[in-house]
Amino acid sequence: MRMYDIIKKKRDGLELTSEEIEFVVDSYVSGIIPDYQMSALLMAIFLRGMNQRETYDLTMSMARSGEMMDLSPIDGIKVDKHSTGGVGDKTTLIVLPVVAGFGVKIPKMSGRGLGHTGGTIDKLESIPGMRTELTKQEFFDIVKKVGFAIASQTGNLVPADKKIYALRDTTATVDNISLIASSVVSKKLAGGADAIIFDVKVGSGAFLKDIDRAKELAQLMINILKRSGKLSRAVLSNMDQPLGRMVGNSLEIIEAIETLKGNGPSDLTKLCVHICYEILDLVHIDVSEKQIMDEIFSGKALERFAKFVEAQGGNPKIVEDYSILPLSNETVEVNLNKSGYIGKINTELIGIASMVLGAGRSKKEDTIDPGVGIEVLKKIGDYIHFNDPVVRMYVSKKSDVDLAIKLIHDAYEVVDQSVKPHEILLGVIE
Amino acid sequence: MRMYDIIKKKRDGLELTSEEIEFVVDSYVSGIIPDYQMSALLMAIFLRGMNQRETYDLTMSMARSGEMMDLSPIDGIKVDKHSTGGVGDKTTLIVLPVVAGFGVKIPKMSGRGLGHTGGTIDKLESIPGMRTELTKQEFFDIVKKVGFAIASQTGNLVPADKKIYALRDTTATVDNISLIASSVVSKKLAGGADAIIFDVKVGSGAFLKDIDRAKELAQLMINILKRSGKLSRAVLSNMDQPLGRMVGNSLEIIEAIETLKGNGPSDLTKLCVHICYEILDLVHIDVSEKQIMDEIFSGKALERFAKFVEAQGGNPKIVEDYSILPLSNETVEVNLNKSGYIGKINTELIGIASMVLGAGRSKKEDTIDPGVGIEVLKKIGDYIHFNDPVVRMYVSKKSDVDLAIKLIHDAYEVVDQSVKPHEILLGVIE
Repeated sequence: MRMYDIIKKKRDGLELTSEEIEFVVDSYVSGIIPDYQMSALLMAIFLRGMNQRETYDLTMSMARSGEMMDLSPIDGIKVDKHSTGGVGDKTTLIVLPVVAGFGVKIPKMSGRGLGHTGGTIDKLESIPGMRTELTKQEFFDIVKKVGFAIASQTGNLVPADKKIYALRDTTATVDNISLIASSVVSKKLAGGADAIIFDVKVGSGAFLKDIDRAKELAQLMINILKRSGKLSRAVLSNMDQPLGRMVGNSLEIIEAIETLKGNGPSDLTKLCVHICYEILDLVHIDVSEKQIMDEIFSGKALERFAKFVEAQGGNPKIVEDYSILPLSNETVEVNLNKSGYIGKINTELIGIASMVLGAGRSKKEDTIDPGVGIEVLKKIGDYIHFNDPVVRMYVSKKSDVDLAIKLIHDAYEVVDQSVKPHEILLGVIE
Repeated sequence: MRMYDIIKKKRDGLELTSEEIEFVVDSYVSGIIPDYQMSALLMAIFLRGMNQRETYDLTMSMARSGEMMDLSPIDGIKVDKHSTGGVGDKTTLIVLPVVAGFGVKIPKMSGRGLGHTGGTIDKLESIPGMRTELTKQEFFDIVKKVGFAIASQTGNLVPADKKIYALRDTTATVDNISLIASSVVSKKLAGGADAIIFDVKVGSGAFLKDIDRAKELAQLMINILKRSGKLSRAVLSNMDQPLGRMVGNSLEIIEAIETLKGNGPSDLTKLCVHICYEILDLVHIDVSEKQIMDEIFSGKALERFAKFVEAQGGNPKIVEDYSILPLSNETVEVNLNKSGYIGKINTELIGIASMVLGAGRSKKEDTIDPGVGIEVLKKIGDYIHFNDPVVRMYVSKKSDVDLAIKLIHDAYEVVDQSVKPHEILLGVIE
């Protein structure tokens, strides 16, 4: 089998065999196929596409390129959750302690943030003492004890994805549905869970701006997982504005805790409860959304979150005392010098504004500042008077405040007619 | 300017600016752009295409990537000739000494053969003592004295083409009309001639199998050259069977000399005379095909060929005494054990058969044997009796004779109905 012939075949729009796809993945990971042949194939795949069978085979070959987690030491049904990424997305921190209360186990591996989206690991690391680099034994022990744990990804899962993604990232071949699905699902398969729920974000702050494409990706990922014997479902949620009110690291931890206390913003609370419901329904645990809210109002979910923080080395008192978290006391309020209704928010720009304040990374090597970020005061449909601030920025000396203000101005669109608030839930795909 | 954005633009089917194309070529040659980004762009170009303006810009940027030959020390009109490559194509060796008789100068740079096609330099090197690596001064001096010279390509012309072609060759991005045109024409432009004639081969032995694509490529190459102020024209010629009767190195030198004596096969003679006519007409020298034939029958063109051989260190007596040329005296005749008319010849297979006998290279590092090759005894339209050989192979101990015989069997198609001989000339594009 020759890589040249495989490139040529895909270039000409033909279907690759399972053997050819396996050869490509194995040979690329082992260094036999050079980057320049792989990038030519990726561009051919980008422009010619792959069918479901090819995408399934690519996903399986990638998943098998490294270690496959064996979660059998953990009793019960193991669930994984994946968000396609948004601005202000702290749902994992809320959903996990809630669903763990109904007996499912969630050994969750998470990533760091890059670009306009944040990462759960970065957010957790705002908590003093919190460790996310866990040995497999620690990881399993915490899941058994608390019901869930959150660890940063280990180095030996899906090496094919790391190598292929890095190449796609420099060759403009990221934004293809088959390549996205294979990247996401291969990691979920290697993670070893029995059931996987996706939170597919749609809108100006998500990489999927369009509902039809989001549905297509969700369906493709679910089909691949079903074909490999997993339970899977996807919630589609609105990302035309930041989720909740907080964007940043300490800020999002605080908002997650507030939500676990029952004081969360309505969009975030509604989405979290709905994801919890879909997870439990997926694994055939019959509970109502009211029972899920009760788990929150009873304080049990918050207690479980504190236990989790403590188990991973953090200070559990943060659930009562936010002063333990690093948070800048220098704030800047931004107003638009306009009056009217908030018509649209370019949410990606809000994410970038948070990044330039220091809450995110423009490249992997950047360090982040847990104490900065953006509090969103006005969302779509809200009315602003001329002097009403739309966001409050928490800034540090290193923050590029001027650029952030400019981005906020660019992000908000103010209109004369009243605007209906956006619905957070856009549907379920199964 | 970022390579990523340029890849993305072409990926999405947009037109690249002159500045973007120049940036790509310059940065790739200087090593700033890595192979893996270049190959992604090449695949995007392959699948999305380039318009004439982009192709022109790519060609110009490539031509300027290295030295541009200044032919002004040579008086008169300088002409270059380019064949897109075929099997048994020795036209250069015949056309150059003929047209030089009418006052044009041809400082010709040629390449070596690879795969199923031979190279003029390899053929010339069959002549004992013949040197094709010339200094620029020697090259110019011989052109001034004899009217033409043939040198192997120097290392500093169009480095962009060498680097890009090597990458295309391993990433299945060779066969694109804009990339082919830019590769060919950039070298012609760097070569510095005033007028360029193309011999575009069409058929089973050429890389262009289809007349419409050949016309399209010819027109594109001519348009680029005209836009850069050059005279240019293309002859389309049939490559559905080997040109003439000889395929190999010494064998083709002998056939070229025979043609210069007026004893050449009719297809080869007709094509050469026609190319001579088109060259002279292109540069406004008014001669008839009869006058061209007279230049041959008078013996002057042969005399000029002998002078050229001598000037480049070879033994000029070869024009009279073929025993000076290395030629195997071991021959094998191949018959098909069939009777009927030759309906088709897969000419690429004839070229490969010659290669496996030792007359060509499957990879650049291979050495070739000047004394082996194939004499084509039967061509399209010929009738064969059961025991008539179709080719005579000149073989050495290193020749893979069994494979060559198999390839000859596969190449020839014998039919019951009589078949019209193919016309060598397929048209002229200007």
